Amino acid sequence: MPDLVLHEDPRSGNCYKIVLTAALLGIPLATRDYDIMKGESRTPEFLSQVNANGRIPVLQIGDRFLPESNAACWYLAEKSPLIPDDRFAQADVLRWMFFEQYNHEPNVATLRFWLRFIGQDKLSEAQQAQIPAKRAAGDAALKLMDDHLVRQPWFVGSGATLADIALFAYTHVCEQGCFALDEYPAVRAWLARMRALPGFVAMED
Amino acid sequence: MPDLVLHEDPRSGNCYKIVLTAALLGIPLATRDYDIMKGESRTPEFLSQVNANGRIPVLQIGDRFLPESNAACWYLAEKSPLIPDDRFAQADVLRWMFFEQYNHEPNVATLRFWLRFIGQDKLSEAQQAQIPAKRAAGDAALKLMDDHLVRQPWFVGSGATLADIALFAYTHVCEQGCFALDEYPAVRAWLARMRALPGFVAMED
Repeated sequence: MPDLVLHEDPRSGNCYKIVLTAALLGIPLATRDYDIMKGESRTPEFLSQVNANGRIPVLQIGDRFLPESNAACWYLAEKSPLIPDDRFAQADVLRWMFFEQYNHEPNVATLRFWLRFIGQDKLSEAQQAQIPAKRAAGDAALKLMDDHLVRQPWFVGSGATLADIALFAYTHVCEQGCFALDEYPAVRAWLARMRALPGFVAMED
Repeated sequence: MPDLVLHEDPRSGNCYKIVLTAALLGIPLATRDYDIMKGESRTPEFLSQVNANGRIPVLQIGDRFLPESNAACWYLAEKSPLIPDDRFAQADVLRWMFFEQYNHEPNVATLRFWLRFIGQDKLSEAQQAQIPAKRAAGDAALKLMDDHLVRQPWFVGSGATLADIALFAYTHVCEQGCFALDEYPAVRAWLARMRALPGFVAMED
């Protein structure tokens, strides 16, 4: 595998997904840090060389750049047990990863970012107005996860996959966005199973 | 392959992605229609049997159900040229598919839905307040696509992949959300290349 460099902000759950995937697979990963609060992922240099979308994480693979956290995890986990071979199971892993980016992250991660890193009193009026809808949608995502995890220990099949890693990243810090983990006991038990995986590393936070 | 049934609303671009993937690959697909405007994807029967997330599309594969449009496309396209074998290229296809669900669909598709299917005068105050941000984010996504397509004819590699299909679905009807395609000439040329693919089918709209 070519040299890997993760362009990241360690407070970002999206970056942590990639760090965790690499750790579980024993893949060495160099990192280069950016402070997104200071706009370091929106500089002309970053936009032209790393990611025109102005976002971290980006996984640098030799001289090529791969944005989107879940795509970077996919690259790292190719042909590993984190991506099942079975046709339905593999698509089902992606199903949860797309659910994570569409239903979970924009609500659970955004409220964490707003409430913990920006601060409620510094939010714009437009952001304030979106809190109730994001709260409801985030709780709906956590409830759906909880209902699923009541029936099975992992999201897909009989062991951890990228689906679990993608959903773990912001779920395990959801209380920082004022979501109540106690309402989701099956999620809480799954978080403990994730933390017990061989090679697990905690988020720098 | 087991019998396939697409649970869909034909006006949805997310459903159309799956129809187009199946058509390009010559895979037969039965459909079952739901009117999302009448809440037909939120009935207790739908939630318990088809998708607990209350959304279409869902691809039924025998007696199993696969939500999330891009995951369903992945299932259909396994081992076809629509998913490259090369490790970086495959992850790069997913990179564009996650970009589509995170940066494109919530803006380009949502404004189409609000303006064409709900109607501007029927939007809630909270929805009205979100229009400027969704307009700016949708235009940013289209601009990023245009800049990419100036340099290469397809999103990844030298032919159409699932990345193109995922992004085509709502881009080709973006004018229904009052986005100006004329501002994105490379996108417009790519739309024409998509329509010329052997087996291409138009969206029922």
